[in-house]
Amino acid sequence: MNFVKRLISYLRKADQKKVRKPVSIKSIYSIADSQFMAEAIQLAGRGLYTATPNPCVGCVLVKNEKIVGRGWHVRAGDAHAEVNAIADAGDEAKGATAYISLEPCSFTGKTGACTNALQTAGIVRVVSAMEDPNPKVSGQGNALLRAAGLDVSNGLMAEQAAVLNRGFIKRMQKQLPFVSCKMAMSLDGRSAMASGESQWITAPPARQQVQQLRASSCAIVTGVGTVIHDDPSLNVREQNLGAPVERQPALVIVDSQLKTPLSAKVVSAEMLATRDVYIACVNTAPADRVQSLEARGVKVITFSEDGEDLSAVNLHALLSYLASHEMNHVMIEAGPTLAGQFVQQHLVDELKLFVAPKLMGGNAMPAFSMPFENMSEVMDLTITDTMAVGPDWLLTCHINNSDKNSD
Amino acid sequence: MNFVKRLISYLRKADQKKVRKPVSIKSIYSIADSQFMAEAIQLAGRGLYTATPNPCVGCVLVKNEKIVGRGWHVRAGDAHAEVNAIADAGDEAKGATAYISLEPCSFTGKTGACTNALQTAGIVRVVSAMEDPNPKVSGQGNALLRAAGLDVSNGLMAEQAAVLNRGFIKRMQKQLPFVSCKMAMSLDGRSAMASGESQWITAPPARQQVQQLRASSCAIVTGVGTVIHDDPSLNVREQNLGAPVERQPALVIVDSQLKTPLSAKVVSAEMLATRDVYIACVNTAPADRVQSLEARGVKVITFSEDGEDLSAVNLHALLSYLASHEMNHVMIEAGPTLAGQFVQQHLVDELKLFVAPKLMGGNAMPAFSMPFENMSEVMDLTITDTMAVGPDWLLTCHINNSDKNSD
Repeated sequence: MNFVKRLISYLRKADQKKVRKPVSIKSIYSIADSQFMAEAIQLAGRGLYTATPNPCVGCVLVKNEKIVGRGWHVRAGDAHAEVNAIADAGDEAKGATAYISLEPCSFTGKTGACTNALQTAGIVRVVSAMEDPNPKVSGQGNALLRAAGLDVSNGLMAEQAAVLNRGFIKRMQKQLPFVSCKMAMSLDGRSAMASGESQWITAPPARQQVQQLRASSCAIVTGVGTVIHDDPSLNVREQNLGAPVERQPALVIVDSQLKTPLSAKVVSAEMLATRDVYIACVNTAPADRVQSLEARGVKVITFSEDGEDLSAVNLHALLSYLASHEMNHVMIEAGPTLAGQFVQQHLVDELKLFVAPKLMGGNAMPAFSMPFENMSEVMDLTITDTMAVGPDWLLTCHINNSDKNSD
Repeated sequence: MNFVKRLISYLRKADQKKVRKPVSIKSIYSIADSQFMAEAIQLAGRGLYTATPNPCVGCVLVKNEKIVGRGWHVRAGDAHAEVNAIADAGDEAKGATAYISLEPCSFTGKTGACTNALQTAGIVRVVSAMEDPNPKVSGQGNALLRAAGLDVSNGLMAEQAAVLNRGFIKRMQKQLPFVSCKMAMSLDGRSAMASGESQWITAPPARQQVQQLRASSCAIVTGVGTVIHDDPSLNVREQNLGAPVERQPALVIVDSQLKTPLSAKVVSAEMLATRDVYIACVNTAPADRVQSLEARGVKVITFSEDGEDLSAVNLHALLSYLASHEMNHVMIEAGPTLAGQFVQQHLVDELKLFVAPKLMGGNAMPAFSMPFENMSEVMDLTITDTMAVGPDWLLTCHINNSDKNSD
């Protein structure tokens, strides 16, 4: 009796103090569910360099707590993750649970609908990490399977699954690509000497890391200044990536007056044989330049606005164009002017700053030439990740100031 | 026999492969010795804001594995750590071991020689972390005690003990102070807007950290530009330090032509009542300015070189002057020009960079205006410590390029 009184007194006090009382919610997922989903997400990551414009998806089939099939989506046009996992499982697929990093598709595109494949294989339970943001699916895949009598649940490890497909998700939701902006700079924020000399600010490990970022991008965006000054290739090289290169990211050159030299590496026949090269210009660019570049195989994109001349390419319009051409994730690798414009116009989702422990001095070129005059204009960042890359650091940041296109 | 053969074979192979064979050296120190020395070093740190120009020293007296007395050196002129520990121990000092973070002094200065005090108290064993770099001691204290029959050893946790007294050590060994250079900057390496606006790049926690750095400095060095533009106080404020302020660091203004306004806070009667203010000029500075500043109580230091005019203060000579005036540790808090000169002339031992996660853009002022032209001139840094200070970071760096005055 004394104990009950004390318990009541404790609960009253707890209530008065608004102490949060422990609430027992039985999760619908077991620890094993999470482990299998983690494996599905890991498998999804194998498509990071190749699956675009499709999302990365992984699938694990489980029967009696044992994995009986694994699959992931390798490239657009090839089988989806679920179909690969079913093939891997063979007869064992019947009666299995499917853990999928993305809701199965319910429509027939280049390949058949995965919802059909799962039913045909005799899958009885489907656990997906997140709904497919593609408006053609968007919950319909799960609904269809549920209607067919399967045990369907959605949302396990959704956040982890979304990271791999943030480009695809942003394109589906906002009709814009996810935009990373890479910059190599000294600790005092300089990207090159005044002469333009910049080889090398960072050490080889940082440059190798850049190869991985390029390989997982749909397009690299640069400016004509960088093309003229550095004559870079801006492609992925097998010996630097440390993996086979199956797909080169497209190259997009912002070049309002089409000053890209025909002798530049980026418009060489060799380069054009391996990747799409776009040059974005405005409608006052010389027509003969358009012709000679297009003759080379370059895709010249002209931006105009209600027939009026534009002095510079509208960068938001450019990104929209790239999204409409199924580019999920683009990476800006440009000089301080163009990179600064993207940042200042709030078009960048993520900065990838490679910072070398060096001081390059006050005459050197800035990392981002944003002509701010007052402290109130400066860009506030949040550093979301810090990684040592050899002697250098890779800081991943997002920009806090209110943003026109990101969420 | 078989075992011996195998052993010989193993040792031969080990020798061929130059495998390092384990060597057993019995340390002369026990774990308890290290623990007591760690406490002595910790006590020494209590003098960090006050002991200058003397070194920070802590002392622990131990009998039967128990601490019987503790002492540290509070301020020059007051009793040394050993004497305070002996007083704390009372009768228990007799027969005790003294753990001291610095070799006891063997000469009579403002107070008596500690070697005498230790003998008189009946100390039987003395363990010191490091020899006193003061040439008046430099091993003689230990030698004297050893000759008197005490058990004396030296070198336990020497590295840890040296950190606290790096200013004192450098002054004794090189007749120069240890030089820190503090800079608050954005992630893109900017210290102010082009207009000079710089309030506030960093958040309050970083500014509080600066108070601690000031409090442990013997002098703050700034430039006349900062005085004219910002009219700062550059002193230690109790409410910001979070501790009583017993001693203000001296202020040193580099002002070759004595343009410091008499209305500046740093030369106000109020400021001069609390600290020494030095202004370093060259011999072409107007004599009437010298007079009016000296009338205020400012110490004007004129630099000349073989009778020739100097357009700028010789910074190495200035640091020598400050060392000869018993300054162990000076901190530069200056604008990009003067800070850059100190860095570029390799006069800085340690950079203290407060980095705010902001982009201030390419028009803003540099952190260090060093007019380098080629990548070969850039300063290579090693980041020795990284600390989160509120939303900002404090990076401690040293400069790797070959150095004229540091070791």
